[in-house]
Amino acid sequence: MNNLRIELAKNLKPKPQDETKLGFGDIFTDHMFLMDYDEGQGWHDARIVPYGPLPLDPAAMALHYSQEVFEGMKAYRAEDGRILLFRPQENFARLNRSNDRVCIPQIDEEFALQALIELLKIEKDWVPHLKDTSLYIRPFIIASDAHLGVRPANSYLFVIILSPSGPYYKEGLNPVKLYVENNYVRTVRGGTGMAKTGGNYAASLKAQVEAHEQNYSQVLWLDGVEKKYIEEVGAMNVFFVIDGEVITPELVGSILPGITRKSCIEMLRGMGYKVTERRLSIQEVAEAYKAGKLDEAFGTGTAAVISPIGHIKWGDLIMDINNNEIGDISMKLYNELTGLQWGRIPDPYGWVVEVK
Amino acid sequence: MNNLRIELAKNLKPKPQDETKLGFGDIFTDHMFLMDYDEGQGWHDARIVPYGPLPLDPAAMALHYSQEVFEGMKAYRAEDGRILLFRPQENFARLNRSNDRVCIPQIDEEFALQALIELLKIEKDWVPHLKDTSLYIRPFIIASDAHLGVRPANSYLFVIILSPSGPYYKEGLNPVKLYVENNYVRTVRGGTGMAKTGGNYAASLKAQVEAHEQNYSQVLWLDGVEKKYIEEVGAMNVFFVIDGEVITPELVGSILPGITRKSCIEMLRGMGYKVTERRLSIQEVAEAYKAGKLDEAFGTGTAAVISPIGHIKWGDLIMDINNNEIGDISMKLYNELTGLQWGRIPDPYGWVVEVK
Ligand SMILES: Cc1ncc(COP(=O)(O)O)c(C=O)c1O
Ligand SMILES: Cc1ncc(COP(=O)(O)O)c(C=O)c1O
Repeated sequence: MNNLRIELAKNLKPKPQDETKLGFGDIFTDHMFLMDYDEGQGWHDARIVPYGPLPLDPAAMALHYSQEVFEGMKAYRAEDGRILLFRPQENFARLNRSNDRVCIPQIDEEFALQALIELLKIEKDWVPHLKDTSLYIRPFIIASDAHLGVRPANSYLFVIILSPSGPYYKEGLNPVKLYVENNYVRTVRGGTGMAKTGGNYAASLKAQVEAHEQNYSQVLWLDGVEKKYIEEVGAMNVFFVIDGEVITPELVGSILPGITRKSCIEMLRGMGYKVTERRLSIQEVAEAYKAGKLDEAFGTGTAAVISPIGHIKWGDLIMDINNNEIGDISMKLYNELTGLQWGRIPDPYGWVVEVK
Repeated sequence: MNNLRIELAKNLKPKPQDETKLGFGDIFTDHMFLMDYDEGQGWHDARIVPYGPLPLDPAAMALHYSQEVFEGMKAYRAEDGRILLFRPQENFARLNRSNDRVCIPQIDEEFALQALIELLKIEKDWVPHLKDTSLYIRPFIIASDAHLGVRPANSYLFVIILSPSGPYYKEGLNPVKLYVENNYVRTVRGGTGMAKTGGNYAASLKAQVEAHEQNYSQVLWLDGVEKKYIEEVGAMNVFFVIDGEVITPELVGSILPGITRKSCIEMLRGMGYKVTERRLSIQEVAEAYKAGKLDEAFGTGTAAVISPIGHIKWGDLIMDINNNEIGDISMKLYNELTGLQWGRIPDPYGWVVEVK
């Protein structure tokens, strides 16, 4: 690749010995990708260098005004040793949409993907082998100017780091317990919900902590305006199966357009299911539940793939879904998605990109 | 002070020669305050060290999930050379309220103030002398763990940096032009608006850029729920004088509880004005304007002190306020506040803290 300088690490770190013990997002590989942006000059100095601290000025704007965006994707090792990516173009396209929302200059998506592939070729031995493990990929961009007034920065740093990881939820495919969040709001239409930018996650922490204290894994977020309509679950998109119809909240601006969500919709339609994207109130879900028509519910996201929902508490109402077991549709999606991602089944969609 | 290690810089930077050319937040002094937090250990290792880059792991959580809070205050040089702070206890109390909202551990407010005073004693020659200049003080806390899952961090860095600054708005006390923002939302009830955390500012950038493109200095934010009620102006609180009554939006959770706002309310009441904190719709302001009863409007904040509002556009309606001149109440508040802050008038409130 032209325009990409490579400086290899002199000493390599030991790779995780026992892949059954891999956590999520705690271990980082030997190298990272970096690229600078400066006003007038554009993006420049793309390089792969040894993983190490970023020397940020204490006044770097990302540390004060959270002008920062990120992505999350994975590299999967197939049984035959190939290394695969799942719809990586979608992640870089979303990164650019996030950039737009918080006034970060656009990146060259094709160049970013090529740079990621170069980085993965260098780090290929870091992609773990055990079932359900993967190399988590974190591209992110931060405002790096040393300036304390509120305005878009004039310089940025684009970074890609890699982390060999086990499953996101220790529970694995076991159904999770949620409650409907009534106090806190993650984001609202007109805000930054459709962008993958840090502030949305900072806003969600307190709800998550309170949920854990009460032995729930996540909260079910309602819209910030009417506090009626379902938005997401934790940091995943959410689907409900009501009377055979698969329903997921439509993308109204406050919801992250998940790539797993999009893929599930396409796969389900391919399988012949009726899939509807529309506003869905918690009231409607509760009524379906009472009428015995709430067949399944699940969250979708790169980290957890499919996360079946077994239990939802809304005020005094407890909804136990599908006897707290994983449902048929959830299971089919899980098998199909993980099958594609780990190269176990053929890819009729053209979604899988091999690193070679 | 016990528990505060001091390491002085070997070489001092040149101080700004021409104080008429001071910008805002671009120059930093020779030293900074740092303190670490680690789970199990609490806050520890408070130190004043030479100003320099923070070596942050690329996976430091603040760079991904914006778990970060900050404050903004100033050190003022009185004509007799004394260095003064304005209600600094309020800033550290607000920092702790912001901490609470984004799950950052509480700091010892009294200790933080003492540490700031020690830092200011070392940096006293950096407090500029020219009228309307000051040493801007930026305390901030960032999540520093290297971890990529969404959860509160286990380690944090508390930093205080100092920046000799001129007036925030180049326009000075000239009335600013605003329009009412209809698309974007800064924050919403249940969100993080009452906390000084980066995500609120990232969310506001795009509106600000679009306003500048149209030759407006700021936007007037409406509430994110009904899009009716006035919240703030840019990064300031806002006051309207209607028919002699001073009205400012009540603190409903999405509004930052400004210290200048609080001080203005107390001062105005002391001067005998009727001051009301309540919901105020843009419709009501427009009707007051049409009836010839909108006497004045102004923003309040540490950076700009008082910023008179001369022009507000709401859809097709243009409101020209007080002939685009600074109003009586704005002028009185400006004189009183700056008089106290720069030690030109006696302080009956006990708000001024001398650095000595
Ligand atoms: C808030 C939020 N919603 C949904 C998702 C799921 O998106 P994706 O399927 O692209 O991973 C994520 C994770 O990326 C997220 O952070
Ligand atoms: C969003 C916002 N509103 C209001 C203010 C004014 O607060 P204060 O008067 O404490 O500076 C600030 C600045 O601190 C702010 O950032």
